[in-house]
Amino acid sequence: MNINGQHFHTIWAEAGNYNIIRVIDQQKLPFEFNIKTLKTFSDAKEAISKMTVRGAPLIGVTAAYGIFLALLNYQNDKPLPVYLKEMCDDMKTTRPTAVNLAYAVDIIYRHLKNETDVKRMTNRAFNKAEELKHLEIDYCNAIGEHGLPLIEQIARQKPGKPVNILTHCNAGWLASIDWGTALAPVYKAHLNGIPVHVWVDETRPRNQGSRLTAFELQQQGVPFTVIPDNTGGHLMQHGKVDMVLVGSDRTTRTGDVCNKIGTYLKALAAFDNGVPFYVALPSSSIDFSIANGLTEIPIEERNFEEVQFIEGKGGKVQVTPDDCPIANYGFDVTPARLVAGLITERGICEATEKEISNLFPNEKRRLH
Amino acid sequence: MNINGQHFHTIWAEAGNYNIIRVIDQQKLPFEFNIKTLKTFSDAKEAISKMTVRGAPLIGVTAAYGIFLALLNYQNDKPLPVYLKEMCDDMKTTRPTAVNLAYAVDIIYRHLKNETDVKRMTNRAFNKAEELKHLEIDYCNAIGEHGLPLIEQIARQKPGKPVNILTHCNAGWLASIDWGTALAPVYKAHLNGIPVHVWVDETRPRNQGSRLTAFELQQQGVPFTVIPDNTGGHLMQHGKVDMVLVGSDRTTRTGDVCNKIGTYLKALAAFDNGVPFYVALPSSSIDFSIANGLTEIPIEERNFEEVQFIEGKGGKVQVTPDDCPIANYGFDVTPARLVAGLITERGICEATEKEISNLFPNEKRRLH
Repeated sequence: MNINGQHFHTIWAEAGNYNIIRVIDQQKLPFEFNIKTLKTFSDAKEAISKMTVRGAPLIGVTAAYGIFLALLNYQNDKPLPVYLKEMCDDMKTTRPTAVNLAYAVDIIYRHLKNETDVKRMTNRAFNKAEELKHLEIDYCNAIGEHGLPLIEQIARQKPGKPVNILTHCNAGWLASIDWGTALAPVYKAHLNGIPVHVWVDETRPRNQGSRLTAFELQQQGVPFTVIPDNTGGHLMQHGKVDMVLVGSDRTTRTGDVCNKIGTYLKALAAFDNGVPFYVALPSSSIDFSIANGLTEIPIEERNFEEVQFIEGKGGKVQVTPDDCPIANYGFDVTPARLVAGLITERGICEATEKEISNLFPNEKRRLH
Repeated sequence: MNINGQHFHTIWAEAGNYNIIRVIDQQKLPFEFNIKTLKTFSDAKEAISKMTVRGAPLIGVTAAYGIFLALLNYQNDKPLPVYLKEMCDDMKTTRPTAVNLAYAVDIIYRHLKNETDVKRMTNRAFNKAEELKHLEIDYCNAIGEHGLPLIEQIARQKPGKPVNILTHCNAGWLASIDWGTALAPVYKAHLNGIPVHVWVDETRPRNQGSRLTAFELQQQGVPFTVIPDNTGGHLMQHGKVDMVLVGSDRTTRTGDVCNKIGTYLKALAAFDNGVPFYVALPSSSIDFSIANGLTEIPIEERNFEEVQFIEGKGGKVQVTPDDCPIANYGFDVTPARLVAGLITERGICEATEKEISNLFPNEKRRLH
């Protein structure tokens, strides 16, 4: 997608010097646009943990490049297979909730583990990271195409009026490589001339909605309105939301959806008001090994300072009293019963084990 | 309640000079503690509109003092009855949602309208404002006493463990004169040695939770944790909330509860997880004239800058992109079906027309 009219991916290998990986730094957006350079495994790990990059598909791809960078800097101080295993295990601990990270690292590891030559292993790691990156782009593009008819259908029911879509957090192209997950159908609709308007949940505490989703939509010229996270229920009660569309950090094989904290509250409101609640996700976000989202998905607890301080244009201010106890959970789980459907790269299915396995019959085997 | 160990009300007439009304300025709390002086009708009106004072019971009482100040400054340029009527009508437009404002002004107006002497009318206005103030204190104290057994009952079921109560916005003593509405039972429990812990919703966009409720609880020594508004559902799913307790800006005679935007989302989550959702309110917050909260209560839309900028310790920062469309609704309506009970000054009742009218059989007549 575009920033100031120039096409970008969120991560890329430097042209002419593949040993340098560049990412869009999402920490200061929308107030500053910076590009950050990753030269080492630690750079990649820190980019993920400090949320220079974030979003389930993007952290998976960044982790893959991180393994490449680890091999590039291999010092011969321990056997290559031990080193590879250690780096992969270490990378997988960086953030606990999004399954894409472990998924990407596992793919890389399986792809490399029988390789004995470090140069060849490094090349293979790079190529696999590139492949995963392009796969995510393809997935997001396909999600956009599959989701588009849902928006078209609503548009036909209210000719001349915009389709109002509520989204939470950022599941746009900044969370991915290009297109995005939840926002891919929105971009496709906009490009197809369907009038859309997006209600953008601010998404406290890190404000990915008001900072990143708003920035993305503004850059692509899609009409939107930022709202506090408290607002969605009221809008749905008054018929101002036609559809909720969110991403996912991990979805169980039974269709329970783990996503940014607060998603569950919007799903409840959608259900209570008959508004369809759709989740857009590449299969890399499905954890085929688990069945119960509430008990089996680890929920990241992040630093309380993310709630205590808010950064914006003009600096950083403290918004809670001194010495104030704060809890900061990163995600919650929306039970499958509240989900109208999953929009995947292979099409739309119900959030049930049967429909998910119909769409992805070989996934469970492939992953284990 | 206390600030730094000293007892305060949120509003009071200056000792020795009743012509000066003082209020705690809630705009800079918890970072600055200021007392503001109201000398004119305009001062009172501005204190309400700019949220120097806020909270349904408090704005009602402030409006009453405002009419007193208007009469104090009567200039003889129009007939007294016309002036009184104009001032009352004007005051009622200050904020649309909380019914307490209109309620208090109507009481004052009915009390004064047949008075012909301006001095006597002024004195009667002052005395009525004082009476309304002390009535609200009594109401809140009684709400505390009636709500206490609900907390005691939960405490008995988990001996030695704190009762976890989630609250949204500020319905504490700062929203009232003393004790508060939703927090009154919490303070009573704390004073009775029952271990309580309050989950404090931040309450965007104005952060009344993280700023005012956190400040109040900290000052009274009640354990609490501030959470982003997105968090409550997750906590309830994991058994970390025993009870939700909120206030109300207007409740219909059928039990629909209008309160700070986002309350409805917490009510849905409570209902979905079998957590009792209670609303604490004095009868001055019940609008006996209306039956449908969703269609009959005007929802205030406030300035978008309240979402665009956040003020805290260290200044003010902009948290949305430049030129970003923003919507800022102040309240939402929780349907009666989601409410476990109303805690009023006369006791607890179900959120139904029958039970409310049993508790307040004469209210409808009195108000019309």
